[in-house]
Amino acid sequence: MARWEPDAEGRLIKAAFVLFDERGYDDTTVTDIAEAAGLTKRTFFRYFTDKREVLFQGSRELQDRWLEGIADAPPDAPPMAAVAAGLTGVLALFADRHPFARMRSRIIGANPELQERELIKLQTLAGAIQDALVDRGVPRSSAILAAQTGVTVFHVAFAHWIGQDDPSAFERLVEDTIAELRVVIAPARTVSRAGRAS
Amino acid sequence: MARWEPDAEGRLIKAAFVLFDERGYDDTTVTDIAEAAGLTKRTFFRYFTDKREVLFQGSRELQDRWLEGIADAPPDAPPMAAVAAGLTGVLALFADRHPFARMRSRIIGANPELQERELIKLQTLAGAIQDALVDRGVPRSSAILAAQTGVTVFHVAFAHWIGQDDPSAFERLVEDTIAELRVVIAPARTVSRAGRAS
Repeated sequence: MARWEPDAEGRLIKAAFVLFDERGYDDTTVTDIAEAAGLTKRTFFRYFTDKREVLFQGSRELQDRWLEGIADAPPDAPPMAAVAAGLTGVLALFADRHPFARMRSRIIGANPELQERELIKLQTLAGAIQDALVDRGVPRSSAILAAQTGVTVFHVAFAHWIGQDDPSAFERLVEDTIAELRVVIAPARTVSRAGRAS
Repeated sequence: MARWEPDAEGRLIKAAFVLFDERGYDDTTVTDIAEAAGLTKRTFFRYFTDKREVLFQGSRELQDRWLEGIADAPPDAPPMAAVAAGLTGVLALFADRHPFARMRSRIIGANPELQERELIKLQTLAGAIQDALVDRGVPRSSAILAAQTGVTVFHVAFAHWIGQDDPSAFERLVEDTIAELRVVIAPARTVSRAGRAS
């Protein structure tokens, strides 16, 4: 029993994603996942506490990678540059996961409970980035603003990335999103026609 | 039975907040709240489905007010100007609620489950703002960016507002926060000393 299975974790993740996507998250059990992966339930529970964790195990890696990038940024880098350095590390993580990311997004989009969990994970990530910036000496409110902005940019660029077909476009989409954000929050030259001299 | 109680809802909210703050959220029951307000449990349940709802009943009002402000913005207002118009309406709502807002913030800060609920409410608000912007013809990604930025600015300015003693300072703090955000996401002139000619 309990013998070593080559890449059991990867097989379980793959089997779970395919089943969640085809059959629906609610209608897939741990038994189904283990069976489809050719493994036992016992093996499943060696890697995951429940089926939901299969979808969110990547969040930890994403957060670690982002924080490593911030830690490696020069000490005098402005907060947003440090956040961007972290995000660059994250993008490398996604390079070969385009079909996988698309599938995950469909699964989560189909289930309100999973959407709620995803929001909480993103906010946990924002909180961790914020703490890392505060530890670098960034004032708290700038740290919150930079962390939230980083996570929002990631979220928007991610949606663009899975909505198009080029897996290598993520970095460009992040840059486009930052540029778009600068336009969005630029001071308005005129709020309405009523304010213009006519 | 079930006779009309003058401002029963207000009395229940006030009693609940004082108890949550003094005794802790988990250690306060609906019976305690009704008793402290001099009302019955039956009356409590005419206004709220559970004790948590007492803390979050204001979220609906906040969202309605924000969306009204967006609806009233000139049709050609840029997305962020529309979001700011909504936020101005929200600020009026808070003008006389400074001590109340402080108490609520302490209660939520002391309880991880409530913090999670608060995050979800803020993201629900961001989603509603985003939809309102899309309905105005704003492209989806600009709508997400403007909505998220609006909610983040609100969140940061709110923390400043309850952290200081002037109840009338909210609008100024919002303006300061937007100014700070523009600085945070401005293109970095130089990322590190290593990049400078020495």
